[in-house]
Amino acid sequence: MNRRRSAILFGIFILIGATAEFSRAETGREAWLRYVPLDDAARTKYESLPASTVVVGDSVVLHTAQQELIRGVRGMLGRTLRAEKSLPPEAAIVLGTLTNLKPTVSDLHPKQELSEDGFWLTTTKVQGNECIIITAANDRGVLYGVFALLSKIARNESLASLNDTQQPFVPIRWVDQWDNLNGTIERGYAGPSIFFLNDHVRSDLTRASEYARLMSSIGINGCTVTNVNANPGVLEEIFLPQLGRIADAFRPWGVKLSVSVDISSPKLVGGLDTFDPLDPRVTDWWKKKVDEIYQKIPDFGGFVVKADSEGRPGPSSYGRTPADAANGIARALKPHGGILFYRAFVYNHHLDWTDSKNDRARAAYDIFHPLDGKFDDNVIVQIKHGPIDFQAREPVSPLFAGLQKTNAAIEVQVTQEYTGQQRHVVFLPSMWKGVLDFDLHANGGNTLVKDIIAGKTFHRPLGGFVAVVNVGTDENWLAHPLAMANLYGYGRLAWNPNLSAEAIADEWTRLTFGNAPEVVKTIAGLQLASWQVYESYTGPLGAQTLTNIVGPHYGPGIESSENNGWGQWHRADGEGIGMDRSVEIGTGYAGQYPEAVAKMYDSLQTTPDALVLFFHHVPYTYRLHSGKTVIQHIYDAHYEGAERAAEFVEKWRTLKGHIDDERYADVLSRLKYQSGHAIVWRDAICNYFLKLSGIPDDKERAGHFPNRTEAKAMQLEGYTSVEVTPWENASAGKAVECTNRKSCIASFKFDRAAGWYELDVQYFDQNNGEAKFRMYVGDQLVDEWIGDKHFPSAKLGGDTSTRRWISGIALRPGDEIHIEGFPDGQDPAAFDYIEIRPSIVDSSGYR
Amino acid sequence: MNRRRSAILFGIFILIGATAEFSRAETGREAWLRYVPLDDAARTKYESLPASTVVVGDSVVLHTAQQELIRGVRGMLGRTLRAEKSLPPEAAIVLGTLTNLKPTVSDLHPKQELSEDGFWLTTTKVQGNECIIITAANDRGVLYGVFALLSKIARNESLASLNDTQQPFVPIRWVDQWDNLNGTIERGYAGPSIFFLNDHVRSDLTRASEYARLMSSIGINGCTVTNVNANPGVLEEIFLPQLGRIADAFRPWGVKLSVSVDISSPKLVGGLDTFDPLDPRVTDWWKKKVDEIYQKIPDFGGFVVKADSEGRPGPSSYGRTPADAANGIARALKPHGGILFYRAFVYNHHLDWTDSKNDRARAAYDIFHPLDGKFDDNVIVQIKHGPIDFQAREPVSPLFAGLQKTNAAIEVQVTQEYTGQQRHVVFLPSMWKGVLDFDLHANGGNTLVKDIIAGKTFHRPLGGFVAVVNVGTDENWLAHPLAMANLYGYGRLAWNPNLSAEAIADEWTRLTFGNAPEVVKTIAGLQLASWQVYESYTGPLGAQTLTNIVGPHYGPGIESSENNGWGQWHRADGEGIGMDRSVEIGTGYAGQYPEAVAKMYDSLQTTPDALVLFFHHVPYTYRLHSGKTVIQHIYDAHYEGAERAAEFVEKWRTLKGHIDDERYADVLSRLKYQSGHAIVWRDAICNYFLKLSGIPDDKERAGHFPNRTEAKAMQLEGYTSVEVTPWENASAGKAVECTNRKSCIASFKFDRAAGWYELDVQYFDQNNGEAKFRMYVGDQLVDEWIGDKHFPSAKLGGDTSTRRWISGIALRPGDEIHIEGFPDGQDPAAFDYIEIRPSIVDSSGYR
Repeated sequence: MNRRRSAILFGIFILIGATAEFSRAETGREAWLRYVPLDDAARTKYESLPASTVVVGDSVVLHTAQQELIRGVRGMLGRTLRAEKSLPPEAAIVLGTLTNLKPTVSDLHPKQELSEDGFWLTTTKVQGNECIIITAANDRGVLYGVFALLSKIARNESLASLNDTQQPFVPIRWVDQWDNLNGTIERGYAGPSIFFLNDHVRSDLTRASEYARLMSSIGINGCTVTNVNANPGVLEEIFLPQLGRIADAFRPWGVKLSVSVDISSPKLVGGLDTFDPLDPRVTDWWKKKVDEIYQKIPDFGGFVVKADSEGRPGPSSYGRTPADAANGIARALKPHGGILFYRAFVYNHHLDWTDSKNDRARAAYDIFHPLDGKFDDNVIVQIKHGPIDFQAREPVSPLFAGLQKTNAAIEVQVTQEYTGQQRHVVFLPSMWKGVLDFDLHANGGNTLVKDIIAGKTFHRPLGGFVAVVNVGTDENWLAHPLAMANLYGYGRLAWNPNLSAEAIADEWTRLTFGNAPEVVKTIAGLQLASWQVYESYTGPLGAQTLTNIVGPHYGPGIESSENNGWGQWHRADGEGIGMDRSVEIGTGYAGQYPEAVAKMYDSLQTTPDALVLFFHHVPYTYRLHSGKTVIQHIYDAHYEGAERAAEFVEKWRTLKGHIDDERYADVLSRLKYQSGHAIVWRDAICNYFLKLSGIPDDKERAGHFPNRTEAKAMQLEGYTSVEVTPWENASAGKAVECTNRKSCIASFKFDRAAGWYELDVQYFDQNNGEAKFRMYVGDQLVDEWIGDKHFPSAKLGGDTSTRRWISGIALRPGDEIHIEGFPDGQDPAAFDYIEIRPSIVDSSGYR
Repeated sequence: MNRRRSAILFGIFILIGATAEFSRAETGREAWLRYVPLDDAARTKYESLPASTVVVGDSVVLHTAQQELIRGVRGMLGRTLRAEKSLPPEAAIVLGTLTNLKPTVSDLHPKQELSEDGFWLTTTKVQGNECIIITAANDRGVLYGVFALLSKIARNESLASLNDTQQPFVPIRWVDQWDNLNGTIERGYAGPSIFFLNDHVRSDLTRASEYARLMSSIGINGCTVTNVNANPGVLEEIFLPQLGRIADAFRPWGVKLSVSVDISSPKLVGGLDTFDPLDPRVTDWWKKKVDEIYQKIPDFGGFVVKADSEGRPGPSSYGRTPADAANGIARALKPHGGILFYRAFVYNHHLDWTDSKNDRARAAYDIFHPLDGKFDDNVIVQIKHGPIDFQAREPVSPLFAGLQKTNAAIEVQVTQEYTGQQRHVVFLPSMWKGVLDFDLHANGGNTLVKDIIAGKTFHRPLGGFVAVVNVGTDENWLAHPLAMANLYGYGRLAWNPNLSAEAIADEWTRLTFGNAPEVVKTIAGLQLASWQVYESYTGPLGAQTLTNIVGPHYGPGIESSENNGWGQWHRADGEGIGMDRSVEIGTGYAGQYPEAVAKMYDSLQTTPDALVLFFHHVPYTYRLHSGKTVIQHIYDAHYEGAERAAEFVEKWRTLKGHIDDERYADVLSRLKYQSGHAIVWRDAICNYFLKLSGIPDDKERAGHFPNRTEAKAMQLEGYTSVEVTPWENASAGKAVECTNRKSCIASFKFDRAAGWYELDVQYFDQNNGEAKFRMYVGDQLVDEWIGDKHFPSAKLGGDTSTRRWISGIALRPGDEIHIEGFPDGQDPAAFDYIEIRPSIVDSSGYR
């Protein structure tokens, strides 16, 4: 039976099946909730699982909990639990809040009091029968308890002597979608919005509902569905019923809906002549608008505000503060229990780059610290984890210590905007853990970031986590199968930031790829190594990702973050690199931290190598704590990073036959791409600093490419040499392109020893055409391919430079090798060079 | 890169890739030519394979041979062989005919003379370098040699001391497609024609070309693309260029094109007032038409003729013989080397069934034996392997011994018309082997069928094999992945009928699913058991498949082959069963065989059990050689057959994770269906003969169904009881259907012990609607499904009766179970019964 089609035929019904053995292909759509049949050995652990389940109490969330339990057990164990209406005269899995269960189940005393959303899994005799109890303070907690039980089964954990209490570390565990009403997503790398299309909410919200299930399973309890760069139309009266439909899709999963709002909505939507937050007409307008929303969506979550930032309107227009703006709206939300998130990402992107005292990193603290205590209790200031903008390496934002009388939430980015855009594997929980466990030493005490945002440190009533997420209509949500570990890890850390990155990688891998030891070891190991590998080939020592900051934030663009007002400066020159943020001679940013931290960062001696260039400007010859000079570190890190990216491919290859072929092939192809793009990064940064510093690589790698033949050095028929900008993004600064012709040819003679070789072609895959390429040895066509990957640029350069790996080619001295390029659209079939490496012949044959 | 799309972009070019590791999903489209990467251990065997290949000679087939060699080696070993223009100064794989190679390769003397299409794989030093030689008498033989070498590599055979000569056993190795010009296929179970659409040849012949590659790889050298029930339009002048395009697709693979012709074409196409084969205007018309064809298609193969059969026009209209008809056309083909196949499948389908001397089985011999010696030398009489029509069990046609001065070919059917229609697994080489190895004792000698059709016995210049094949546009060609073994096996047997069924199953499994020992053992074992399993649940002791002979030839239809003129009679009555074909008191058919065979079949004592009812009418109490009575054999065979079909499912389940998930799930679902349909067959035949004979089953199975609840015995809301015709195709002769309502409900109380159960619902999946079903325990929905399989009938009955297997349901005494059916179109959501079996709980947990 075709399940997809069937679901449609049945209309709103989900087609259920009593057997899961005709498993669908592993598309990734089920993410970590696959519920695939356990193998025989694992299944024996659950033989004594009760055959019945009963819910005490009645709500849509409790109903969801029971249905999910039945679904999961059916999938993994092949049994359909009986959904009983009342306690049956036999063992059962009993679901309900503590309050509801007490009359039925005597002696139900959790060791610790259950907080909102927390749950307790235990076993006890009920009316003489040994039952599994899933209980909680509220309905949502019961649902979370069901997911936790199913996760244990999926990971083959024993349920013997089950007694597990899990409490959320923070009350706020939200995600922000940057979805636009027209259906696009800002920084969307996995297809268009699952919520919106053509300025309407989609008629089919199946994916929204499935997404809510994923969020719920990792404890996420709120979701802002619209871009922080808000479209005022979201508050139009005509739009509210549509929002209500999204809330309906979220509700069964205990996820609250919120939206971003434009601070000028009273003017744009309300027709007032002002949006001054202190004007009574404005506050009145907000009150009426909010009442109207709550009438339609009684469990509405609240608003997110981005104001006075990157061109957005804000309270500064009326000389008001962010606190004025936030409170004006928050007071409308307050009677309904709604929350107002105000983003601390407020900075001037027209900074004067010639003033060495200017520093974008200072902005959040400078603006918000003076307002501490001025925000209402249902306002949360949403603070990016670092002072800049989601770079691969930043220090912790000092604002976490700077707001002690204000609710705060940390904002992290599951969207891999600066970390490879879901084309490179970067397991972000490793990075987030460093932030969350960082001790700011506020007030001289032990003040870890995670404790501050939880409200524990400064005794705040609210606080928590927000993550930017760009799930899209791609079947597997985030385009790269391994990127889903970031969404999973975010939820798990928001629930319990004391979890280790290792534990999260282990959990996610088991749930997503199964429990085979070699699979878990390989995939979790790769994930855990990935952030440092990415960092090491994209930017050194806290100088930030040296990406194209004024373009797509993807490929290398070293000079793009200098000489402009965006403020993401690294201050590299012929002598040295780094931005001096010390108190005395620098921007003073280091002084925003509490004393102990400020002291550490203020001093070159005590600043960790990983952040040295973030805080200090040093000569290339400066010796790090590691003993290496900065310049040699740049060379070493980038070469080692690219090598380790290549090792990822080899490691993944060991999984052939151990996981499903679909995801095996999909990830393999992505890892190969990544290893090629790591070489682009490595060469751009090493070549750039080699030229800038004039200091050679001790190991004679940078600037030496013995196996390469540059395209421009080949015999060209139709192809013409072209300068690439910036120069470091192509080998020797040049490439060849084919314009105004059907095809062009570049050829050269092979003059090395006879043998088996790998031919790597570095070409440019632009998003404005699908050029084709053919590779010949003599007149034998040995490979052909199409540049149809739609990398985020319409130009040849670091964003589009791509490697074609051609394996197992026998070459003989005198062979003429040629490549023929066929332009398409505006894509000129450009390429950079061919690298010819001897094949590795090992005991297992050719590679 | 999306390969499918890429191939389109490149137009006529096939997109080649130097690496095969991003393997496509296992759709089955590559069949046994997958060329997937070998594992490391296997690859070491081929490390010393030369890096170069050279073709001596020039032809489209030789070019194909070299390209295929490169493709296969690249796929399996990851190396691209160098396609050299002349012998390189290094080891090489050298391709060429013996004639072409002699000047280059000295001392090339095969131990046996190479016949047409035969080849020799060997190694020798050429100009001092150790080379692999693939040589043959003709170009096609070289291509076959390449396929043989690649097959060895795919099956991990050593190439050390390679010296392998393979010669075709027969010159004629053809297939007949029963494709209609409108795009349908007679007995097409795998989608519409790959050749035709809307009375034209398809514009895209990619699949035709891929099919030619498959044919070529197993030595098939001719293909008739049009249905034997010929459309005269195929000879219209306007159609010939279109046929030419198919020939163009076949030519690179050494496959000749032929078409079927309507004997009345001179009238219908030529506008003559006669098609009398002896009329000079008619012979002249054929000559001109054939000349015209050969002008367009110089390597055209010839014609196939079905005449005077099943309503087709024939020479009898003019009092002429089949020999007159055949020779008249053959003489037009002769100058061009064309062949005329004349089918011996000529019989009267309006036989008087009340005359016990009448016998359709006699027809071919009665008509063609008197004509022996009257056919021209380029005519081949095409003889179905048995005297009836591709039944699961028939004796060998006596006509093979009855034509000693006439070319003969055996016609077998890869199309599983009477053997489960590619919904049941039936590995036909097992059956074919029995036919080919049968000794007819013609002229008192040792005259095996395979030797006769090869022309060896009677020294005929031509002869061989023809198979009816129904490949369609289904991605995997024949719908059931395991059915492809029949096409493979046919080709291999046509090439070498001395191969064992075991060897063929082993080869096909290794090529199709890989070399893992447990995979080969399980799949080959299942294939080898399958024919006998199918036979045992569909018809006993040579009484033929008891299928619906006047309907789709699919489900049971025991009485359909009695009391009508089609002649496929089994003569069952209250006392006994079987058709007396003995010489004295029967139809005399047994006497058509040469003496030794005639004697064996004429006597009840010496007729093998497997054919006893084909030759004799016996009482149900007659004791077989096995010691069982006929009636007990009927019960035992059908119960054992259904049990073994169920075991196939269990055996297949052991392959989970050892083969790709796609084909695992696809075949599993088909085997489950088959095991359910085997129960339909078992019950129909056992119940029928229980009632007819009045003799109970010793083992008390037939007529006893303790776990069943009949639909008509349930509490019905909307559902109405309906008689099923024939009665034996539904349990107790009745089912329930839902008409003129949105939905209907049938319910009953469960009154057995508490436990885990399997609920099997026997329902009817008609092809005139997609009814839906929901199964509830209490008010809990435990399963839902849609009847969308399009089985070959618009009625409820044995063709559409289908089992839904619902696993792992916990039931308690007093549970109300109900099924809700939702009719769709003309499909009334009918069902037959529910069977509730205790779940098997074994050491590995629930099943």
